[in-house]
Amino acid sequence: MTDLEAGHPADARTEPVLAVDIGGTKIAAGVVDADGRVLVSDRAPTLASHDDDADAIWARLHALCESVLDAAGRPAIQGVGVGCGGPMRWPEGAVSPVNLLPWRDFPLRARLAAAYPGLPVRVHNDAVAVVVAEHWQGAGRGVANMLGMVVSTGVGGGLILGGRLIDGGSGNAGHVGHMVVDPQGPPCGCGSRGCVEAFARGPGLAAWAREQGWRPNDPTANARDLADDARADHKVARAAFERAGWALGLGIASAVALCDVERVVLGGGVSQVGPLLFDPLERTLREYARMEFTRHVKVERPILDQDAGIVGAAGFILRGDRYWSAD
Amino acid sequence: MTDLEAGHPADARTEPVLAVDIGGTKIAAGVVDADGRVLVSDRAPTLASHDDDADAIWARLHALCESVLDAAGRPAIQGVGVGCGGPMRWPEGAVSPVNLLPWRDFPLRARLAAAYPGLPVRVHNDAVAVVVAEHWQGAGRGVANMLGMVVSTGVGGGLILGGRLIDGGSGNAGHVGHMVVDPQGPPCGCGSRGCVEAFARGPGLAAWAREQGWRPNDPTANARDLADDARADHKVARAAFERAGWALGLGIASAVALCDVERVVLGGGVSQVGPLLFDPLERTLREYARMEFTRHVKVERPILDQDAGIVGAAGFILRGDRYWSAD
Repeated sequence: MTDLEAGHPADARTEPVLAVDIGGTKIAAGVVDADGRVLVSDRAPTLASHDDDADAIWARLHALCESVLDAAGRPAIQGVGVGCGGPMRWPEGAVSPVNLLPWRDFPLRARLAAAYPGLPVRVHNDAVAVVVAEHWQGAGRGVANMLGMVVSTGVGGGLILGGRLIDGGSGNAGHVGHMVVDPQGPPCGCGSRGCVEAFARGPGLAAWAREQGWRPNDPTANARDLADDARADHKVARAAFERAGWALGLGIASAVALCDVERVVLGGGVSQVGPLLFDPLERTLREYARMEFTRHVKVERPILDQDAGIVGAAGFILRGDRYWSAD
Repeated sequence: MTDLEAGHPADARTEPVLAVDIGGTKIAAGVVDADGRVLVSDRAPTLASHDDDADAIWARLHALCESVLDAAGRPAIQGVGVGCGGPMRWPEGAVSPVNLLPWRDFPLRARLAAAYPGLPVRVHNDAVAVVVAEHWQGAGRGVANMLGMVVSTGVGGGLILGGRLIDGGSGNAGHVGHMVVDPQGPPCGCGSRGCVEAFARGPGLAAWAREQGWRPNDPTANARDLADDARADHKVARAAFERAGWALGLGIASAVALCDVERVVLGGGVSQVGPLLFDPLERTLREYARMEFTRHVKVERPILDQDAGIVGAAGFILRGDRYWSAD
């Protein structure tokens, strides 16, 4: 099992890495040492104003990178690792994040390669980065076969099989949110229907609750407010998380049958509600995962904090033997 | 792409392999050369009589192995590869095939190791062996990410990701037949409900058709007879395959979202019915697989003949770099 423990291979380089995590609302950057510890990190809003164009966003990201490198004392770095909202062309790293409209096929990898010449730059999905971090240093440590899930505005994920990150044909493996759990289910943003994401994404939860008669005082109330109401025993709010847990449990049951993972690590904003989501999830999973090898899968909460995205991004460089297959 | 082409690695040994394929009704054995060509093969019924105990079955299997080795001129062999009906403890190779009751936790790998001392013996699921054969030499050749399916008495499968066979935590990866496609669907033999297998396995098709009023002249009529009736435009028979195709299409859509496979290779007795199954499968798959990366998956028929099981079993030894992870 030594190969699966955290740490770095014997032949690994010792310089730190510049790591970047790009979401629709915030960007984070950090300098991560060769053992995967965050030495310095900082964050900024992704958009300073609604007028921001692609280059303005890039300029702010680059300034943030320079600022953390300064704060770390301008060390020599061995590479740049990036998690960014999808979709993207992978491994080219030309990104079109759903929640960041000014970037459409934006050449993120090429820009970073020009800014930090001579270094490997590796860009992957932001949910995948979080999953890599949890596998490397968190709730999946030492587990050879793991499904990681991030249940938030969307439902993302990543697959670790045989101790390695699985990329699939186009770098899109791990889209557990678009497994179909109910063929007559609600329409999904992807164009299909009945996907896990259609039931379990935060905005979907809130929209369903409204349809069922949830009337929060604040008209902009979201899944976080819905969670508060569920904890206060509001019937519709509880039913919304029950339904999301049901869909997640079904998706996990199918994923375990197909991939024989030993562990699932499920995080993201929606999961913060805790047992109101995890109890129906577990009940559904145990109802549908009945084979000897599927019965024993464990569903765990993540261990790492909000730095997980940059830790995982650093993993693409520091543990490329496991977490980067593309070059 | 060279690494993904058929053939053997530069450092590979040149001796042939003894390859075995064990099902509920027949056993097959062959001698396969280092390039994966079947030099000699033969088959026998698995059970000679209903009284056969575990040792009688083993004795017949061993005699079949000796007979093909004799027919090949008693070459020095480099190992023994086996595909066997599941479930099994893997990689220990202690097997309990669903359709072979006398073998319960039967130490197949240990028996073969004792019979052919000093050689590696590798035992894996029989559906996995067929999938390996199709990836190595058949319809999946050169494809890095592939789901193979065998739709027959059960619905089995195997996953190739990143050019390698995926085993999962207990050697059970690839159980696409137990992905849940309809949470309100019919009970499945695994204890769950709504699994692909509950809709698409041959006996399930025939049973459903009977419930819907299919009245074949022969009371023992099976899925093959149902296929004949479907070709003759019998309404219920057609609906049975339509329903199976729907379930398979849904399972594939979810598998592609999770694993980002570029190709699916689908064979097995039930698939022989052709377009009556594949048309609804394709229709359903295209309805539910709507993302850029899922839209382009291709579903192909297998290329190899009935020797696929022994070719794949040989692959566990001859291409262990891709198809064997356990030692």
